[in-house]
Amino acid sequence: MSNIYLDNAATTFPKPKEVYEYMINMYQNYGANVGRATTSYDQGINSIVKETRDMLKNLVNAKDGYEAVFTPSATIAFNQILWGLDWSKINNVYISYFEHNAVLRTLEAIKKDYDINIKFLEFEKDNWKYDFQKIEYEFENSSPDLVIINHVSNVFGYISTIEEIYDLSKKYNPIYIIDACQSMALVELDLLRYRFDFVIFAGHKTLYGPFGIAGFIMNKNIDLKPYIYGGTGTESMSMNMPNELPSKYEAGSLNTLAIFGLYKALKWINEIGVKNIRKQEEIITRELVSVLQKYDFIQTYIPTNNHIGIVSFKIKGYPVDIMGECIGKNYKITLRYGLHCAPNAHIVSNTLPEGTIRVSTGYFTTLEDIRKLDDALSDLEYEI
Amino acid sequence: MSNIYLDNAATTFPKPKEVYEYMINMYQNYGANVGRATTSYDQGINSIVKETRDMLKNLVNAKDGYEAVFTPSATIAFNQILWGLDWSKINNVYISYFEHNAVLRTLEAIKKDYDINIKFLEFEKDNWKYDFQKIEYEFENSSPDLVIINHVSNVFGYISTIEEIYDLSKKYNPIYIIDACQSMALVELDLLRYRFDFVIFAGHKTLYGPFGIAGFIMNKNIDLKPYIYGGTGTESMSMNMPNELPSKYEAGSLNTLAIFGLYKALKWINEIGVKNIRKQEEIITRELVSVLQKYDFIQTYIPTNNHIGIVSFKIKGYPVDIMGECIGKNYKITLRYGLHCAPNAHIVSNTLPEGTIRVSTGYFTTLEDIRKLDDALSDLEYEI
Repeated sequence: MSNIYLDNAATTFPKPKEVYEYMINMYQNYGANVGRATTSYDQGINSIVKETRDMLKNLVNAKDGYEAVFTPSATIAFNQILWGLDWSKINNVYISYFEHNAVLRTLEAIKKDYDINIKFLEFEKDNWKYDFQKIEYEFENSSPDLVIINHVSNVFGYISTIEEIYDLSKKYNPIYIIDACQSMALVELDLLRYRFDFVIFAGHKTLYGPFGIAGFIMNKNIDLKPYIYGGTGTESMSMNMPNELPSKYEAGSLNTLAIFGLYKALKWINEIGVKNIRKQEEIITRELVSVLQKYDFIQTYIPTNNHIGIVSFKIKGYPVDIMGECIGKNYKITLRYGLHCAPNAHIVSNTLPEGTIRVSTGYFTTLEDIRKLDDALSDLEYEI
Repeated sequence: MSNIYLDNAATTFPKPKEVYEYMINMYQNYGANVGRATTSYDQGINSIVKETRDMLKNLVNAKDGYEAVFTPSATIAFNQILWGLDWSKINNVYISYFEHNAVLRTLEAIKKDYDINIKFLEFEKDNWKYDFQKIEYEFENSSPDLVIINHVSNVFGYISTIEEIYDLSKKYNPIYIIDACQSMALVELDLLRYRFDFVIFAGHKTLYGPFGIAGFIMNKNIDLKPYIYGGTGTESMSMNMPNELPSKYEAGSLNTLAIFGLYKALKWINEIGVKNIRKQEEIITRELVSVLQKYDFIQTYIPTNNHIGIVSFKIKGYPVDIMGECIGKNYKITLRYGLHCAPNAHIVSNTLPEGTIRVSTGYFTTLEDIRKLDDALSDLEYEI
């Protein structure tokens, strides 16, 4: 039985063919350290880097007030942003239940140094929706200084209604961080209309780029202290990081290998169109959900509405880890089981402490892949 | 006139052919997120990651007391190590003149929070050697708590005599950090004999791997607080980073694309042998030095002894940036000019504030490349 890849929430695979080709051809021919040398072709690389930033900004309709900053991973982006904020001015932090440990563990460490209240944005578990009334009430009692929301849950594919929460909190003028690792170039985000301050993206996930490149689109007016110090190839006599963006937050060599890949991936996304990518993912997701819900021995955890191709389930009466291993190994299906680094999300689905088995689709997931999963589950039902 | 690449200190280029091929083939076929899924081929990737760590440890003869930790860049490695140390126990920090801004700017930021003395390891500028007598005297007066030494200078190729300084300071039992970004797999380092606590490497420099993978070999007994918080795929319920190494310092997805490349590069290094790589670099360096020193209009800054293929120079009477641009653009030579992110190194050569023009060789630099540089300089002498 052939391998079926259903772990696109961990990293999309495969990438568009041209991403591999372009990345390696460019790296093989233009492998210099950009901005730190002085060749004729250096300029060419610089313009690719700039165009990549522009394409990222365009994806979320970010205009001049925003800058695109590169980091090696979304985890490092979260650390740079969270540790870089001025915590002397922040008391009340609101987060969703769906936050990743890159947010939770970082906040927990910050909490050791600063007196902050971390509160959940109230959620109606049974209806899979935010409880706007309660949130409004909470905001009135403890006005939000910082709001962090996961746009698409990496456990349930749930799409958070970030626009409504933005409207509710606008009058308190909090700092806004959107984790768009599972949503960028898949679910629309309009920074011209909703002025979130930070949007974090992971190049190797919904952007179909390689590992090694991630970052954030940031509101240039937010005062963010650097968290990673080092060389920038500019103002080297100064013992401080330069003040200009994006250099201030980009110490060290830029990973042009990964940027080449992301550049081509964004070109590919623009050719196909975000709407069409989402449409394709919705077709596959519908099929995936209908397959999983066909079986009585499977318990699914699917948001009532507003979700995309990440689906969590369990085999009734069996431990998640044993069944996850079994489906993965015996039927050669790449999937994931456990808490998916988002422990609080499992409060919503009542799946603590063992978590769920997760299958997640991407643009290249086919109906044939879903049929093979169906075959595997059908076989499994017979076996257990 | 064709391109000549003489910026190997910024990043080695090209990489061995098999590095590109293996990296992209593996990524195209095994692009999953390692340790976070459950496929049959996951195990295969895990063993490549482990073997890569082992090869890195072997390069510096690091035994069981050491662990190899991956980071996305050497800059991030420095930040993780320096910010992670227990600064309440550190007063006197000794650094060499050759440190990179990844060290200097980070120390400067730490100094804002902690009361520390940063001192230079005394250096005899005229003789290009450490002043052991003065260092010994300084150590006696202000015993070292932390020593940071750049093994090979990224400005002059100068090889620091780290073993002698180790011996001088041993009785004070300081924490030892070696910046091996320009030396690993080129200049020998024996951690069994000299028990440095941290050795930082950059995959894309002397290790001939790609951008996106770096790290440090660390003494497991040093208490180092995490600096980057996030998911590790383990103990996800815990709001703290796991205690086990290397996970404690490796939050977020491992960059397997880059690890595939580094793995193959290390295999290549082992095949050729570190001694032979150095021998080859010495042949080219001798030629490079003799070419530069042939011209009266060129001022070179070359350590009396103990240096490898990184050479700094100036065109007498002309600004460094203008001549750097000129040689780079007109003769299509990739090189670098300025401070090279190591401002204090220029105290040694008296080249502040403008710095130097730097040419740097790698294993794939040929005598033909040096001949072309010679042609360019000969032409330039005529032009100016």
